[in-house]
Amino acid sequence: MSRVAYVNGRYLDQRAASVNIEDRGLQFADSIYEVVPLLDGVLVDEAAHLQRLERSLREIRLPMPMGGAALRCVLREVARRNRVRDGIVYIQITRGVARREHSFPAIAPPPGIVVTARALAPPPRDIAAGGVRAITLPDQRWARCDIKATGLLPNVLARQAAREAGAYEAILIDAAGMVTEGAATTVWIVDAAGVLRTRALDHAVLPGCTRAGLIDTLRAAGMDYAERGFSAAELREAREVFLTSASSYVRPVTVLDGAPVGDGTPGPVTRRLFGLLMAALRGNR
Amino acid sequence: MSRVAYVNGRYLDQRAASVNIEDRGLQFADSIYEVVPLLDGVLVDEAAHLQRLERSLREIRLPMPMGGAALRCVLREVARRNRVRDGIVYIQITRGVARREHSFPAIAPPPGIVVTARALAPPPRDIAAGGVRAITLPDQRWARCDIKATGLLPNVLARQAAREAGAYEAILIDAAGMVTEGAATTVWIVDAAGVLRTRALDHAVLPGCTRAGLIDTLRAAGMDYAERGFSAAELREAREVFLTSASSYVRPVTVLDGAPVGDGTPGPVTRRLFGLLMAALRGNR
Repeated sequence: MSRVAYVNGRYLDQRAASVNIEDRGLQFADSIYEVVPLLDGVLVDEAAHLQRLERSLREIRLPMPMGGAALRCVLREVARRNRVRDGIVYIQITRGVARREHSFPAIAPPPGIVVTARALAPPPRDIAAGGVRAITLPDQRWARCDIKATGLLPNVLARQAAREAGAYEAILIDAAGMVTEGAATTVWIVDAAGVLRTRALDHAVLPGCTRAGLIDTLRAAGMDYAERGFSAAELREAREVFLTSASSYVRPVTVLDGAPVGDGTPGPVTRRLFGLLMAALRGNR
Repeated sequence: MSRVAYVNGRYLDQRAASVNIEDRGLQFADSIYEVVPLLDGVLVDEAAHLQRLERSLREIRLPMPMGGAALRCVLREVARRNRVRDGIVYIQITRGVARREHSFPAIAPPPGIVVTARALAPPPRDIAAGGVRAITLPDQRWARCDIKATGLLPNVLARQAAREAGAYEAILIDAAGMVTEGAATTVWIVDAAGVLRTRALDHAVLPGCTRAGLIDTLRAAGMDYAERGFSAAELREAREVFLTSASSYVRPVTVLDGAPVGDGTPGPVTRRLFGLLMAALRGNR
């Protein structure tokens, strides 16, 4: 079956789906995106993802190309046409097509929009054997990583370095030696004192929707946690390390820069949180 | 006359010239570009631009999509078909079309290539009346601005802020208070002591081809200069400030953050350098 994409008002065979070469998304990465997970055919945290999309657009002064209700219809239709029940829906919005000049076009063109969907293996029932490797790298990204923009070359290079090191993710360290986030994930630790921590939101990190969903879950379960950043040294001394993202939910890191995290298997807090989060996501439908 | 673009092996009407929605240039800004000026029908500093293109590609491990001789033919043909004698040729090379995943595609697709041309007014014979306004802004870009990559959203936002302030360029200041470069130009000053200065090359700035051409010109004329960075405070105290770039050659800044630079008119060093550079470029053909 060929895949179907929604592009600027039309559903197209994805192989033939294109944007003009002067689309500002291509020439300037003047463009915002979102990835919404699909679980058992249901869009997960849809409201949070669309809210973040609107926030990112607002930060770069790019209007929504269509109303929220219409966009929600498109997401469902793209998932349906591609028969995706478990996977992701990808949304990209650009500042449209205009003669190349850095500043915004004097007469704003219609924003460009692309929506695709893709099946992924459903998350496992249990992550006892699901640990991944991660490496640490300097964070080379721009100063506004809270905006979900498509200028992802630093992330691409970091992920490629991770892959070549046999790892799943690159955890990024800022100039002060503090962990910001993964190249495409939020980083959490259970620190040496047993405290569950993730960095507080600021301009250096994306406000993760799965991060927010996990915090809701922690509160509902009465579990303690701290939104407090940690250094690369604290990361290395952590009892447990795990990642959250829309496409991987909760993923344990069991090897960091070649050394085992804790005893080298997914820890008890990580495993409990995975179970609680998945129950919440499946129950919230 | 409709414009003609070269895209992945074909010359196309630019309105119909497009790239697939899964081109990594669009989805990840996994892409490099160059802008080569045309002066009286001749490509200026072509060898330097193509050398920098190859360097940028090498830094992100992206192969050239064609040999250098073939590419030089395409640049000329695109200029010819668009009847551009004074203006620019734009080259963009992407990591091609692949299913969306941050790391490089396991089987490398053919790189994507787009070449366009555009007429611009020829440079003036004299810049005595050619001063522009500039503002200063924090540099929010990534850590590898020596690579000419298309992740230009920070530059777009800075240029837009400049335009809204009635200015031509935004001069970027790093966290240590030092000038890096303009959002799309190299910055030079004649400092309070009369020394002509521009920042030495490092990872924070693009190795400007026009910058290099001007340095050759300075040497040939036996003029002193220093490749030594300067602070925002030194910029404010400078006798003269000017910008260099492929599309503007030498452009005097006569108003900085609303205050006049020197006496508020293009200074003698700037005017002399403009004359020397243009004579060298026109003579070198």
